[in-house]
Amino acid sequence: MRIVVDAMGSDSAPGPDVEGAIWAARKYDVAITLVGEKEIVQQELSKYDTAGLDIEIVHASDVITMSDHPAMAVRAKPDSSMVVAMGLVRDGQADAFVSAGNSGGVLATALLSRSRLGRVKGIRRPAISTVLPTRTGKCFILDIGANTDCKPDWLFQFAHMGSIYAERVLEIPSPRVALLSNGEEDTKGNEAVIAAHELLKGSSLNFVGNVEGKGILSGYADVIVADGFVGNVAIKTAEGVSNVLLSALKEYLQAGILTSLGALLAKPAFNKVKGMLDYREYGGGPLLGVNGVVIIAHGRSDALAIQNAVRVAREAVQQKVVDHIREGLGSIALEDSEEA
Amino acid sequence: MRIVVDAMGSDSAPGPDVEGAIWAARKYDVAITLVGEKEIVQQELSKYDTAGLDIEIVHASDVITMSDHPAMAVRAKPDSSMVVAMGLVRDGQADAFVSAGNSGGVLATALLSRSRLGRVKGIRRPAISTVLPTRTGKCFILDIGANTDCKPDWLFQFAHMGSIYAERVLEIPSPRVALLSNGEEDTKGNEAVIAAHELLKGSSLNFVGNVEGKGILSGYADVIVADGFVGNVAIKTAEGVSNVLLSALKEYLQAGILTSLGALLAKPAFNKVKGMLDYREYGGGPLLGVNGVVIIAHGRSDALAIQNAVRVAREAVQQKVVDHIREGLGSIALEDSEEA
Repeated sequence: MRIVVDAMGSDSAPGPDVEGAIWAARKYDVAITLVGEKEIVQQELSKYDTAGLDIEIVHASDVITMSDHPAMAVRAKPDSSMVVAMGLVRDGQADAFVSAGNSGGVLATALLSRSRLGRVKGIRRPAISTVLPTRTGKCFILDIGANTDCKPDWLFQFAHMGSIYAERVLEIPSPRVALLSNGEEDTKGNEAVIAAHELLKGSSLNFVGNVEGKGILSGYADVIVADGFVGNVAIKTAEGVSNVLLSALKEYLQAGILTSLGALLAKPAFNKVKGMLDYREYGGGPLLGVNGVVIIAHGRSDALAIQNAVRVAREAVQQKVVDHIREGLGSIALEDSEEA
Repeated sequence: MRIVVDAMGSDSAPGPDVEGAIWAARKYDVAITLVGEKEIVQQELSKYDTAGLDIEIVHASDVITMSDHPAMAVRAKPDSSMVVAMGLVRDGQADAFVSAGNSGGVLATALLSRSRLGRVKGIRRPAISTVLPTRTGKCFILDIGANTDCKPDWLFQFAHMGSIYAERVLEIPSPRVALLSNGEEDTKGNEAVIAAHELLKGSSLNFVGNVEGKGILSGYADVIVADGFVGNVAIKTAEGVSNVLLSALKEYLQAGILTSLGALLAKPAFNKVKGMLDYREYGGGPLLGVNGVVIIAHGRSDALAIQNAVRVAREAVQQKVVDHIREGLGSIALEDSEEA
């Protein structure tokens, strides 16, 4: 299996991207293609011992940055690392693509660039996803940013894709699927959520109803379906609250001698809690609904996060997630009124 | 000043509601009217020393519960504590109403019941709000649940009402107002947020642009404007993450002898962090945009939360928030196409 890694993706690229890819090549026995400015990537690569690893570099002269407008950038920068890397997947020269770059850029590259993979036929909209830890395990949330103003049938399809992913890759049998809403009752929600709720009640999924924001981490559901705007606000709120609480705790702990001593003794417990919402553990989430395995990692990824994103890519390939979404279309496909 | 407290509001009513009201009467020198089943409220009241306090009971035979459908309940239960209490405010027998009951019920009582206060003329939709702590102070967020599928002009009015409240009651000069969105750039958002952004850019407010979920607690803005569906998901996510992190920390700390000792020493620091997201401190948030001061407290309110909700009510009355919203309509009013 060969996995393409965007060497220019993360906020600190190419350091973490290259190092993480090397770790993954060694740990997961995968071949790696690094895409980026050849000299820069080569120089970074030469810092490490890569003996025995199958690591190639493919040159790309340009980079889509965090401040680029995705849809414009993928057309204006056909030789960017993202577009070149995605082309390798589309042309069958690699099995999956991992990027910690501009997530809108990855989405636009998959849908609009010269290397576009396109949507799985019948899928209205691809969704960006991530895994979050819960009190009892983990849950898979989508969409977290690919689509705003989602229609009920998009949400319905996200639910199916999420269920397939949770079952195949996260190995959760009969995943419990919930809709993120402003109340648990069936009647709660905005117009799209209320309509999607009706669609899901009549589906073959293990639909467990609505979940509120405070239920995301409670372990109530394995798959949480949201409009991309709402899902994005939710996961970023979770990240922000976690950061603020933990940094405040650190500050208060360092403020006194006794509390400092206490902090020293209690350190193992703190570190466990710090690790709970650590996105690096999960590496990245798949862009579901496109014709290929694409993993979007956090912009602040370090080498560990990149390594884990490659692991996620490998699992998605091994578990044939794209094939299962394509085959599952019997239940996901909707009247093709909107398909153009 | 006389403040009406829904004695049957909180999840543990009437205990916390009555006790908190007594505390508030003593601490803030306000007259209190408790509304609920007379015998039950009287019995609760008799447990405390209320010498020298001006506390009345007004009988209401019914209660709107958390599981009631708000719009139906306020019509079906005209003698519920909420409807009777709101009537006292409407008829000028009290200056403000505090309830820890079903927030949709309070909203419906204010708009649809026989005691309805109605909207301030020109205001499209009232908004439910709350105060959240930040790294540097506090911020005021609205709407957190009154309205789903908000139109851009509703969001625009929320921004104005929130700015007035932050300036008058929270004493923040020229409050920085932000829109909750899925990205900081001007172009990020769903359709309503992008349109509201344009309206706000041209307004007299101190509009600082979009804020992401992770920016809610960062102190970037003093007023955060959201669709009620999105705002509800955000604050409940914040609450859930805080609960999960702190309970996990507690569990890990108790798991070993050294960490337990550490926890004991570090306890002052933990308690500070626990207090950070403690809704009891802020008591409750105003329902803005109706013709009267109405404070909605958390359903899990204890006596301290109720006491603080009465404090918030008193400040809103003293600062003439409703008058300022009415007078501020020069900038909040929109073409009356929708007004019906």
